[in-house]
Amino acid sequence: MPLELSFVDLLDYAGTFAFAISGIRLASVKNFDLFGAYIVGWATACGGGTIRDLFLNMSPFWMTQWVYLVITGVALVCYMFWHKFINRISGTIFLFDAIGLALFAVVGFQKTIEAGFPLWTANIMGMCTGAVGGVIRDILINEVPLIFRRDIYALACIFGGVVFSLAYMIDLPNFLCQILCAVSVFTVRVLAVHYHWQLPILHDEEDKL
Amino acid sequence: MPLELSFVDLLDYAGTFAFAISGIRLASVKNFDLFGAYIVGWATACGGGTIRDLFLNMSPFWMTQWVYLVITGVALVCYMFWHKFINRISGTIFLFDAIGLALFAVVGFQKTIEAGFPLWTANIMGMCTGAVGGVIRDILINEVPLIFRRDIYALACIFGGVVFSLAYMIDLPNFLCQILCAVSVFTVRVLAVHYHWQLPILHDEEDKL
Amino acid sequence: MPLELSFVDLLDYAGTFAFAISGIRLASVKNFDLFGAYIVGWATACGGGTIRDLFLNMSPFWMTQWVYLVITGVALVCYMFWHKFINRISGTIFLFDAIGLALFAVVGFQKTIEAGFPLWTANIMGMCTGAVGGVIRDILINEVPLIFRRDIYALACIFGGVVFSLAYMIDLPNFLCQILCAVSVFTVRVLAVHYHWQLPILHDEEDKL
Repeated sequence: MPLELSFVDLLDYAGTFAFAISGIRLASVKNFDLFGAYIVGWATACGGGTIRDLFLNMSPFWMTQWVYLVITGVALVCYMFWHKFINRISGTIFLFDAIGLALFAVVGFQKTIEAGFPLWTANIMGMCTGAVGGVIRDILINEVPLIFRRDIYALACIFGGVVFSLAYMIDLPNFLCQILCAVSVFTVRVLAVHYHWQLPILHDEEDKL
Repeated sequence: MPLELSFVDLLDYAGTFAFAISGIRLASVKNFDLFGAYIVGWATACGGGTIRDLFLNMSPFWMTQWVYLVITGVALVCYMFWHKFINRISGTIFLFDAIGLALFAVVGFQKTIEAGFPLWTANIMGMCTGAVGGVIRDILINEVPLIFRRDIYALACIFGGVVFSLAYMIDLPNFLCQILCAVSVFTVRVLAVHYHWQLPILHDEEDKL
Repeated sequence: MPLELSFVDLLDYAGTFAFAISGIRLASVKNFDLFGAYIVGWATACGGGTIRDLFLNMSPFWMTQWVYLVITGVALVCYMFWHKFINRISGTIFLFDAIGLALFAVVGFQKTIEAGFPLWTANIMGMCTGAVGGVIRDILINEVPLIFRRDIYALACIFGGVVFSLAYMIDLPNFLCQILCAVSVFTVRVLAVHYHWQLPILHDEEDKL
């Protein structure tokens, strides 16, 4: 269960911080109290990995590593003191988010491969690790999940997963596979936002639910 | 984990398609993009079975079988090209849904029995497989789950589970138990809608939450 | 999996009843039908423990013990016949809730320790057992979870968990640890409501989501 590669550790910690900030920020818009903001930040950061671990039939990664609780706490304290600053630099926040997405996708992919599942399952688990935290965040703040309506997010993970799979199949060293995957996810995400890439909306006549 | 009976396979695939259509349809009412519609369709179809498998302490069924992802994709493509048609034939959509409900209840019941749990647990897992996908769908589109307010849905699964249990206890062949269960669920569901069977509402003076 | 201590059993059953009433009450405000109210009551009562068991990588406790289904049913029947009475005595309802919170925190703490996890994980699982049921309830009725915005609730579990941990570390008999923990959670919760203890709100300028 413990991640032994220090590179994966680093990816994991940086991504946790970035995602926690994103959750705490939305919780503050909803006027949650400090506890609520902490939980939403934590769920945004650790929710995807938790679901991934439940799907892999193991206890969630954070249950034996208190570092994730500490990182979320640090994110909360940072936000409390710098929230005006953080809100003003929304471009940087977006980069945080894209880095987190890339890092989490790699961790999810890697862990699923190590658990013995096929590449396509690893690809889905990479996306799950990256994108499900945001879905849980939006459910907790009672909003329609953003990623179902706005630009390319989870699909960037899928793209990165395909890159990882190809690199993996031609026997590149694992370290390189991970970097290529992370760079792909990050690049697609940044380009998607910069050029306003969007998927078509599934329109419908407003009929009664 | 793989379902070996080809009869169960068939039930599973047909139910997946029917439920995916139901999820995609509601996602389109909410103007989700194609990715969002795919995920909601997939969650409607596979969500109940996923929760069932987590409760049975195993990895979800779809993690080793890509066929469910393909079926959801086919449902999305069908809906994209035929959505006006599909919305007009809401009676047929309803039949899809009832068939899916019946098929999923059988699969859930069977799998829980095979995992060594008692009949009453299998009954609940059958209902879970059939009805929880719709609850997850409604949470994802940020609506109050329909099945908590409208007609007989999950209770049809419970009735089918009782029929399965009785057939199982008098040692009918498994194939027959499954058919009896599926027919019971389907019949109760169709009759419930046709005759507007409803459970009493739990009324309350509007007091503050 | 079965809880063998009769003291823990009793805690568990009383807490289940109290939490189920709280869920059924909110379901009735939303005009759910009897089935919906039953499920929301059940999810409020058993949801926290279910998530805890999934995190501990075991099947949920209620899958081998039908008593929890019966208790929820009893709670529903009680509410149907006495709901005006129950709504009038909201002070008593609150005590129910506080007792449930205390009891569930103890059960969650105990079970996690027995599964071999460290004390800090047990502390989180105690909070999870006590507080997550209410979060699931609020998601099912499509409201922003109360505990993210209002007074001290989950934090009372954390406090009780710290008391349990200290008692556990100085080798007090297990029975005493449990009582001290339960009394701590209950006391903090009651004092928090009586004196309107609140956590600071994380304010923010309304910026676009």
